[in-house]
Amino acid sequence: MRILGIDTSTMAASVAVIEDNQLVCEYTINTKKTHSQKLMPMIENMLKESDLNINDIDLIGICVGPGSFTGLRIGMATAKAIAHVNNIPIVGVTSLEMLAANMNLCDKKICSILDAQRNQVYTAKFEYIGNRLVQINDTDVLEIDKLINEISSSEDDYILIGEAVYKYEEKLKDIENISIPSPSHNVTKASSLCSIALEKYNQGENIESCYTINPMYIRKSQAEVQYDEKMKRLNDGK
Amino acid sequence: MRILGIDTSTMAASVAVIEDNQLVCEYTINTKKTHSQKLMPMIENMLKESDLNINDIDLIGICVGPGSFTGLRIGMATAKAIAHVNNIPIVGVTSLEMLAANMNLCDKKICSILDAQRNQVYTAKFEYIGNRLVQINDTDVLEIDKLINEISSSEDDYILIGEAVYKYEEKLKDIENISIPSPSHNVTKASSLCSIALEKYNQGENIESCYTINPMYIRKSQAEVQYDEKMKRLNDGK
Repeated sequence: MRILGIDTSTMAASVAVIEDNQLVCEYTINTKKTHSQKLMPMIENMLKESDLNINDIDLIGICVGPGSFTGLRIGMATAKAIAHVNNIPIVGVTSLEMLAANMNLCDKKICSILDAQRNQVYTAKFEYIGNRLVQINDTDVLEIDKLINEISSSEDDYILIGEAVYKYEEKLKDIENISIPSPSHNVTKASSLCSIALEKYNQGENIESCYTINPMYIRKSQAEVQYDEKMKRLNDGK
Repeated sequence: MRILGIDTSTMAASVAVIEDNQLVCEYTINTKKTHSQKLMPMIENMLKESDLNINDIDLIGICVGPGSFTGLRIGMATAKAIAHVNNIPIVGVTSLEMLAANMNLCDKKICSILDAQRNQVYTAKFEYIGNRLVQINDTDVLEIDKLINEISSSEDDYILIGEAVYKYEEKLKDIENISIPSPSHNVTKASSLCSIALEKYNQGENIESCYTINPMYIRKSQAEVQYDEKMKRLNDGK
């Protein structure tokens, strides 16, 4: 079983292949270049350098979000196209699970945070039970101050992981029960995605096709919010 | 400070750039293609896709071994050439430290193992004290059975990490105090190398130049062993 993982949920684009439980290749670019420019050349170069081609892939792992609206659409469209051409299944993994899986076998609780703008973060909490990553609360959008208060008043030690830790560095630095991972771990990585997707596939969870899988947006896009507000104003004015 | 990390100590070739404490890019290819074929195209493609060029690099992190003799020489020659051209320092990191750093902030003890042929492994033990990775014994070459006996009779829980865990899977699978990391973590990664190299640089440790840095071979190559044996036979015959 050879799985191609694709993630474009944050500024980083990351792709990887895992085969028979071993990492074959991984490529991550974490720059402001848009995903539409980065993604396909990365996949093409990585497969070529690994002596693989797109027909060698048996399963797609895709990050479904939460994260950048445009980024998610680009990754999802690419994953659907490859799954369609090869007639293979797709397994969806969340960006917050991916981040938590970077802390493989960690004994502390893990709280993933991604910037959701307006002083809010997309967040979920996880822990390793044995060698299995388990999500311990629902995925949510929270004010960063509310989340920090909740964690700092907890008796557990937490790893806080995700690009938003840089944005809120000042607020986080003096909180005793929070550790921040090293730069090598603090970005969504497609190898972690592949590991989770393979585990889900083996458990028969989240197995979808190119026709059924969809991004997880959590909240409406700014355009949709503005459209709803406009429609409400028009209706109220009636 | 922008650091380019290069690792060719195992079958995998891995390169990465970290800047101002954030991962910019990372590329890992873990196939049997030789390092002389893989390494330069990977560095070139990764820098190009990240809108960087070789003159943007301020520091080189290089894996000094232990590992593949030929691999180490290819990585070292490349690192020395770039350091020479840019007139920048080089920081050496061992392959065993790199593997341990994949388990960032882990509470268990970490034992890195790389295949040294003849039922032996290159090995060293580590633990995280706070957020700092500390090596707790000397780097060594040991019979795998001796190492397994030692760990299984210890009271501590261990993560056993490195490509050799696949080779010795059968011997390891029923030992209760050993955990094996996921495939995404069980390979040397240049982002982990960059994190350690940056920490060493900031502490003023292991800072070398293209003229002073050398690979860490631990034991003699097979060619040297055979040469020594031949010379001994010739001398004994005198």
